[in-house]
Amino acid sequence: MNDLMKIYFAGSICSGRQDSKIYREIISYLKQYGLVLTEHFGDDDVLLDMGGRFSDREIHDKDMAWLLESDVIVAEATIKSLGVGYEIGRAIEHHKKILCLYRPTVNLRMSAMIAGAPGIVLAPYDTLDEAKSHIHKFFSKIK
Amino acid sequence: MNDLMKIYFAGSICSGRQDSKIYREIISYLKQYGLVLTEHFGDDDVLLDMGGRFSDREIHDKDMAWLLESDVIVAEATIKSLGVGYEIGRAIEHHKKILCLYRPTVNLRMSAMIAGAPGIVLAPYDTLDEAKSHIHKFFSKIK
Repeated sequence: MNDLMKIYFAGSICSGRQDSKIYREIISYLKQYGLVLTEHFGDDDVLLDMGGRFSDREIHDKDMAWLLESDVIVAEATIKSLGVGYEIGRAIEHHKKILCLYRPTVNLRMSAMIAGAPGIVLAPYDTLDEAKSHIHKFFSKIK
Repeated sequence: MNDLMKIYFAGSICSGRQDSKIYREIISYLKQYGLVLTEHFGDDDVLLDMGGRFSDREIHDKDMAWLLESDVIVAEATIKSLGVGYEIGRAIEHHKKILCLYRPTVNLRMSAMIAGAPGIVLAPYDTLDEAKSHIHKFFSKIK
């Protein structure tokens, strides 16, 4: 009874939005594998949430509720981000399946805490096709 | 029977070492409150651990063992770092007491996931004296 799989996409918000186009493309591709609970993380107006529309506590609690509800975490971790690290740390404790995409040409040294964590599938990529191939392989294994 | 309190100091390693002098000063000050399990995070040769001396898995498992053994986490989170975020996320799940120091003049927008997490004492500072004052207040309350 595999209903729609729930996916938490994690990407940098406060640490910089320069990869938001890549996030949108990954999120769009992910939709064939399930419901992306954090689809709006690809939108540039996600930053408006920070500007007073919601308190930090409201943002944290809403995102954590989605994280806990999800079956799978797909992180794009090229931009070094406290929030993405935090989400991965909490997801590990809840035994979530985690795919961690990153571009090693930009993030020259992935954190040893992420690269060395058991249970994270590390997926270095260069082109978007490579990222999609990692995603496809990851979901094929957990279906 | 308060033996020596065990402190896990967290700071950026792979995401940049430009704050290492500040880390050393904080670690040195922390020693009056307990045993700093990760004292070497202030040393610049901590990067040698990454260069092949230990695998990512060994680094992760060693640091996680210290994190779990500690009573208190003191993070310097000015530099955006996946590792520090990860450590804070895992520490929260283990109900550790967490002090999160950062310099808002450098980190202009602290992650909402950190700023909004219940259980983290957020401690923005500018001068080292202010950081010490935050630390003193934090330990005074948990003694």
